[in-house]
Amino acid sequence: MSEPTVIDALLAELGAEVVQLPRDFGSRQLQDWSGVPGAVPAALIRPRSTQDVAKALRVCHAFGQAVVTQGGLTGLVGGANALGGEVALSLERMSRIVEIDRTSATMTVEAGVPLQVVQEAALDAGFYFPLDLGARGSCTIGGNLATNAGGNRVIKYGMMRDQVLGIEAVLANGEVTSAMHKMIKNNSGYDLRNLLIGSEGTLAVITRAVLRLRPKPTAVATAWCALPDYEAVTKLLALSQARLSAGVSAFEVMWAGYYDAVLANLGQLRAPLDKRHPYYVLLESVGSDPERHAEAFEAFLGNMLDTGIVTDAALAQSEADALAFWAIRDAPGEYPKFIPHHSAYDVSFSISDVGQVAEVCEQRLQERWPDALVMIYGHLGDGNLHIVVDIPGTQGRVHDEIDNVIYDVTRDFHGSVSAEHGIGVKKKAFLGHTRSDAEIAAMRLIKSALDPRSILNPGKIF
Amino acid sequence: MSEPTVIDALLAELGAEVVQLPRDFGSRQLQDWSGVPGAVPAALIRPRSTQDVAKALRVCHAFGQAVVTQGGLTGLVGGANALGGEVALSLERMSRIVEIDRTSATMTVEAGVPLQVVQEAALDAGFYFPLDLGARGSCTIGGNLATNAGGNRVIKYGMMRDQVLGIEAVLANGEVTSAMHKMIKNNSGYDLRNLLIGSEGTLAVITRAVLRLRPKPTAVATAWCALPDYEAVTKLLALSQARLSAGVSAFEVMWAGYYDAVLANLGQLRAPLDKRHPYYVLLESVGSDPERHAEAFEAFLGNMLDTGIVTDAALAQSEADALAFWAIRDAPGEYPKFIPHHSAYDVSFSISDVGQVAEVCEQRLQERWPDALVMIYGHLGDGNLHIVVDIPGTQGRVHDEIDNVIYDVTRDFHGSVSAEHGIGVKKKAFLGHTRSDAEIAAMRLIKSALDPRSILNPGKIF
Repeated sequence: MSEPTVIDALLAELGAEVVQLPRDFGSRQLQDWSGVPGAVPAALIRPRSTQDVAKALRVCHAFGQAVVTQGGLTGLVGGANALGGEVALSLERMSRIVEIDRTSATMTVEAGVPLQVVQEAALDAGFYFPLDLGARGSCTIGGNLATNAGGNRVIKYGMMRDQVLGIEAVLANGEVTSAMHKMIKNNSGYDLRNLLIGSEGTLAVITRAVLRLRPKPTAVATAWCALPDYEAVTKLLALSQARLSAGVSAFEVMWAGYYDAVLANLGQLRAPLDKRHPYYVLLESVGSDPERHAEAFEAFLGNMLDTGIVTDAALAQSEADALAFWAIRDAPGEYPKFIPHHSAYDVSFSISDVGQVAEVCEQRLQERWPDALVMIYGHLGDGNLHIVVDIPGTQGRVHDEIDNVIYDVTRDFHGSVSAEHGIGVKKKAFLGHTRSDAEIAAMRLIKSALDPRSILNPGKIF
Repeated sequence: MSEPTVIDALLAELGAEVVQLPRDFGSRQLQDWSGVPGAVPAALIRPRSTQDVAKALRVCHAFGQAVVTQGGLTGLVGGANALGGEVALSLERMSRIVEIDRTSATMTVEAGVPLQVVQEAALDAGFYFPLDLGARGSCTIGGNLATNAGGNRVIKYGMMRDQVLGIEAVLANGEVTSAMHKMIKNNSGYDLRNLLIGSEGTLAVITRAVLRLRPKPTAVATAWCALPDYEAVTKLLALSQARLSAGVSAFEVMWAGYYDAVLANLGQLRAPLDKRHPYYVLLESVGSDPERHAEAFEAFLGNMLDTGIVTDAALAQSEADALAFWAIRDAPGEYPKFIPHHSAYDVSFSISDVGQVAEVCEQRLQERWPDALVMIYGHLGDGNLHIVVDIPGTQGRVHDEIDNVIYDVTRDFHGSVSAEHGIGVKKKAFLGHTRSDAEIAAMRLIKSALDPRSILNPGKIF
């Protein structure tokens, strides 16, 4: 009689209803949105509860079996793809909203609940859950936590780690570390929560979370601004943050190269202003004082025009106007229509360096490829730049060369090779551009301490 | 010839100017503000640079010599006291402000700079550094980071971990992990920064930091509110957060027992309102629109009075008025005058539990000691309660019994035994009331991984 395999043991512990073999999940989505190919996992485990997750990990730990945890598979760096040999652990069945506590302004959820479901439940309860990204319909809270997701409104509300008060997670050996607290302040020992958030499934499987809800904004003001130079952009950022009492909820900057390319190629977009300008900013402020909000925003904008910091501006007079401005910023969703083979980067810098970084990147790319299309835009309030490059006629073949140009500049300006997407497998080679050897050594020590058999998402991050 | 001692090695590496022996630092302050006695360290190391810190730790690591890192020695849990046998490492000489970057709104500092120096430098540069606590003149940024300090304005600006973009730290073996970034977003690998922040000197010595500056508020509105019951308090909290566009910068709740005791015992305080009420809230909103701020705040307060959520209120008409309100909230500084032997607690709960927690604590204490004075107040927006207990005639002898009452309630309501002060030695016995066995085991694994010889502040936290 042969020894039982890890699959036998998983089936014995959890049953065929929870543990599926490849023949049973044949047509399933197996890879994320990164374009990195995903392997077929040896089995697909779909736990119904934290206890199921604990059981699965205890078995995998005993066998030294690698596990890749999967949420909505919308990641952009291959972090949730199987590389070969793993079992996949999908949290799709753990998708309940457990409780909404109106007095504490918290929502307790299982990790598999989609972001959009949380957003809508918050609104229904009279609150607001501010994290928002394009994949909202498919991505899950567990994935948002594993990658510390960002998005458009980080400038006002912070990233995913700022939206959560407590988490429950299962460690590699099957131990459940439950810290489902609702307190905002808790200085009792190490901050395990923030360590697990953003660790891309390599330290634990996050199973539940207590989310922090915010008051629902009741007023919004949006403007499309044109600016003469990068210095004016940083001035507008500082002044809008200093003078708009409700704060700034979006400060999306677009370089002329981006604006020109998307307007030229996407017929449905309409130009908010008559003339062409070097820089554009989509400025948004949400607040809760409908009576005074619009008036204060308009007065501020008028002052910016008077002082010449803003050359020209269009104020949204309706939701349709605001949507038309956002359509220009959200044009990257339409790239496949005109630059299907582009290379895209998500990098961050100190705000004082961003202007020069953009210049240097453009210059180095166009030195090497004179006809390079370089589109630059981003969440400037967070120092987060998106750079999109297309070299006509190369069909994506020079992707690695473009990587080197962008990431070398990132290293030289002490930036981050991943502002919000994570490292996964796609950016592994460049981790050392942002994190020092000593930091990476410390990360490895923590990884070995918490996952000594290296079963959790091996081969990711480092 | 005898083997060189660790002190010999430290002197050889750093010189007598950096390494002092007890005969040289005789009259120095040796313990923090907790009342926990501090031992005399075997030597006092006062590094001038990160490289000095690295040298000192390399020697201590080689010898297995315990090290206690010290900042301003203003902690309240004995975390920076020597327990016996340690060398002390004081960051007092590393107190430079290295740079202020106005465009990025950052300040780069050495860890030994006092908090108040940072606050003042920020104001001089046209910015605001929001962390504030009573010890501001003595406490240092390094200590604020090691303990994740809180204070009065957490509700709007967050705790110390929210005020910092990058840190440099020296690990137990002398390795320097430098991450002096100015980016707000950085999803490249594990969040070592948040792990080290709040670790109370047990994982690394923080040597430098990039602090995040905020726009200077230009308008402030303050009111003293009286409320009929705890439900009204939570309603006022939710509504002020939902309707004041500039947000709430302080929401300090005081139970009648606190108010009555401080007014009765401290002659300099004056009552803001004629009558006595069950609950008081000091409500403050800072903003940046002087034109509309006061008007919006007054309209909100009027509405709260109309709906009966607030029974009576006094609006500060001058800075003097506001200071008089704050004097009532800041009365704890005067406790030595009338309750020199009191026991004080810094605990946190979900906001929905706070009302009941206060009731249960008062009831249990007065069952055991019918003449117990129980004073309850706190930062309600953060769920952070301060509970002060004095049992007349006991001269502090029943302190441990009171501990058990308060911390048992904290455990039963899934609260934190330390909202903002840390664990140190004073709360070690109660860590398990808030953190699970699995969490504590994970903390110990991380501690062993990063400090295998356990030289960094041994005997603290766990």
